[in-house]
Amino acid sequence: MQPNAIAHALLASYARDGGINHLDGPNLPSQDSVAELGQNFMHVLFPGYFEAASLKQTEVATWLAELLAQIEKSLRTELEKSLRFAADANPAANAARIAEATLAALPEIRRIVQTDVAAAYAGDPAARSFEEIILAYPSVLVVSLQRIAHVLYQHGVPLLPRMLTEYAHERTGVDIHPGATIGTHFFVDHGTGVVIGETARIGDHVKIYQGVTLGAKSFETDANGQPIKGVKRHPEIGDHVTIYAHATILGGATHIGSNSVIGANVWLLESVPPSSVVYYKNASLVIRPREKRDTSIESQLAAGQAGDWDI
Amino acid sequence: MQPNAIAHALLASYARDGGINHLDGPNLPSQDSVAELGQNFMHVLFPGYFEAASLKQTEVATWLAELLAQIEKSLRTELEKSLRFAADANPAANAARIAEATLAALPEIRRIVQTDVAAAYAGDPAARSFEEIILAYPSVLVVSLQRIAHVLYQHGVPLLPRMLTEYAHERTGVDIHPGATIGTHFFVDHGTGVVIGETARIGDHVKIYQGVTLGAKSFETDANGQPIKGVKRHPEIGDHVTIYAHATILGGATHIGSNSVIGANVWLLESVPPSSVVYYKNASLVIRPREKRDTSIESQLAAGQAGDWDI
Amino acid sequence: MQPNAIAHALLASYARDGGINHLDGPNLPSQDSVAELGQNFMHVLFPGYFEAASLKQTEVATWLAELLAQIEKSLRTELEKSLRFAADANPAANAARIAEATLAALPEIRRIVQTDVAAAYAGDPAARSFEEIILAYPSVLVVSLQRIAHVLYQHGVPLLPRMLTEYAHERTGVDIHPGATIGTHFFVDHGTGVVIGETARIGDHVKIYQGVTLGAKSFETDANGQPIKGVKRHPEIGDHVTIYAHATILGGATHIGSNSVIGANVWLLESVPPSSVVYYKNASLVIRPREKRDTSIESQLAAGQAGDWDI
Repeated sequence: MQPNAIAHALLASYARDGGINHLDGPNLPSQDSVAELGQNFMHVLFPGYFEAASLKQTEVATWLAELLAQIEKSLRTELEKSLRFAADANPAANAARIAEATLAALPEIRRIVQTDVAAAYAGDPAARSFEEIILAYPSVLVVSLQRIAHVLYQHGVPLLPRMLTEYAHERTGVDIHPGATIGTHFFVDHGTGVVIGETARIGDHVKIYQGVTLGAKSFETDANGQPIKGVKRHPEIGDHVTIYAHATILGGATHIGSNSVIGANVWLLESVPPSSVVYYKNASLVIRPREKRDTSIESQLAAGQAGDWDI
Repeated sequence: MQPNAIAHALLASYARDGGINHLDGPNLPSQDSVAELGQNFMHVLFPGYFEAASLKQTEVATWLAELLAQIEKSLRTELEKSLRFAADANPAANAARIAEATLAALPEIRRIVQTDVAAAYAGDPAARSFEEIILAYPSVLVVSLQRIAHVLYQHGVPLLPRMLTEYAHERTGVDIHPGATIGTHFFVDHGTGVVIGETARIGDHVKIYQGVTLGAKSFETDANGQPIKGVKRHPEIGDHVTIYAHATILGGATHIGSNSVIGANVWLLESVPPSSVVYYKNASLVIRPREKRDTSIESQLAAGQAGDWDI
Repeated sequence: MQPNAIAHALLASYARDGGINHLDGPNLPSQDSVAELGQNFMHVLFPGYFEAASLKQTEVATWLAELLAQIEKSLRTELEKSLRFAADANPAANAARIAEATLAALPEIRRIVQTDVAAAYAGDPAARSFEEIILAYPSVLVVSLQRIAHVLYQHGVPLLPRMLTEYAHERTGVDIHPGATIGTHFFVDHGTGVVIGETARIGDHVKIYQGVTLGAKSFETDANGQPIKGVKRHPEIGDHVTIYAHATILGGATHIGSNSVIGANVWLLESVPPSSVVYYKNASLVIRPREKRDTSIESQLAAGQAGDWDI
């Protein structure tokens, strides 16, 4: 096929295959702008940590005024695009209003992310300083940006909040929906593979390790077979709960009582009372001599499964 | 050691430690160019979604012609490098031919990725719009680019297809080999940690959650102890199959029949007939009161393991 | 709240919420510079692989001298920042000394990363060439940079080593602490979700799959409830050990004997002798017909859990 023919075939496809073309509509929020916004929010939340040059107390007011002006402009632009997409009646004014409310929430968010950093320091023997945590722990980025995205989510903004958490997901491997409600002193250690759903509610002083899912059970569908949106589908976690690596907790009616500890790899569909410990009793772990290299047993082991053969 | 001595030691190492130097050979495909190609493919597949400014119907033909020309040039360049690496007899002509065939496949790929987006919308109660899915769901990026990489793989191109899927792996945490064959309406939810091997075959309307592996059993080695390449090693998944988080399915002879549901964390080495459900029967989950903070039980729980002590 | 009021509230927060502000202190290492350093180290370790144009033998000495000078300057700058942060008495001189020692270690590191690439080739039937591995396997990036970060760690440098491994973690989903000691011929296949802790020791010819954790048991706290830092907390892995996907091995006294194979999803708190195989005996996998779409059983399966109902 010649270049012209390819172009014509693609143009025909743009006319034919619907739902994945965005032509003549209002412009959508930009992934690049959202990434820059995410980075700028980190600069404001942690002054002096991500600057190219040292930030002095005498300069900080000027630095902040410039940075806030830049964030406000970009945030308002992307908010207006998101609101136009949702056919908002007054997108420019509402974008300005929500941008201001979001910026006004930053001091309170800073108060909470300070507790997140403290929780990381208290929760990880490998952490040597607050500075190391802020500069090198993925938890700080993903949780801080989710807290900002949650403000946008509470204002009913489409697209932008999820794009902001997806930017953090892409960088950290931690996928926290903007809708999730998270208390103070939250720490996600290592983090890769963590999934926290839209309607999850997490108390204060909760620690979560890599690969943990706070997810939904299988969901209801409507008469057209489409999933019913907006229902409470994800668990509620009390205060002072620790959830070890790769545990899976599902369901909107599942409540993990405060002061509980959920063991690694547990999967849990039911509520547990406060001060519970949850784990598997009889794991039937087999430790046997390896007689010789045996391809068939290797295959089984690759699958985590082995019978009771002589090996 | 002085700078000169270090440089000399490294030059000696370049002469001595083989297999990891690429000097005087034809230039290899560039990671940066592959990343840019990946992004440009997304622009073509989803017109108007990733543009800095709104894309109008009246401009789309011009925009497309320019974008296709840019992609064709870059794709041809990286293809030629890949083919020269493989000592292709006619790398320039073959690169042009394969680039054209890949671009010619884009309308059909668009027809299929449209079904992927529809599957994400139908498969996730948190998804509010097609726009949100295209802008913020990692599944769209990783599956779309794998479909393009698969075309290159089918033409026998070395290096480039795997670099393209690795670009997507780096951004999403989802590792799908270019060799895998994937039907329509495919959705990977959350995605982080998913691994799908080279010879996997996946039917239509399949949904996979985070951490799922479609992998190989332990493999055969030749007389020199090197793995035998090119053997069917990965599973076959029928139509309308759902595989929940962290399930592991292994082996080239393992067939999951259509309309089956594989439970979370299942590991499976054997085939199952159509319309199966697969899960663990007796999980022996223990939920007990936590008497007091007890370091020893905490250790056990961190490992997902606990005996039957009083705690 | 007006822009001025927001700025004032943030300035008040900078004065009030401690531990997350870095004002008037010495500048901290820069994430952007660390990312660039990481990329430049890859250029030095694998000459000709990541260049925009072909690298010729006749040019390599000049190319190397320039690249080393660039790395040395940037490394010395970031080292000096790290040492000033730690109140080092002579940060400029010590930064120069440690930068030189790190560069001097590169030939030996090259000798070892060559064995890593060979191990990937021998360990993955999908790998077609050393070139493919160097250009498209995340293991090469993350293990090579950890080996460099480990040199910095051994010199007692704060911040910078962890930032370097976190750069690799962000790109690959593999989180290896700079403190971990790793032998030759090390291969992490796919990798996403792998976590290897600070005091882990890994022998030669070890292969690890995605999602494997070599972690700590619950840790000791001091009189103030803070974790005690610097204790041996992570496992020791012998030579010629394979650890399949999602296995979790924990504890500083846990030794995996050489030539052992650890099955997928195993969690292990105890030592095993050389030449062991470890797996679960009775997995009680249930494979049953799916009578009809049944929301309640779907919920159970999403959680990997199902009772014994008729379905």
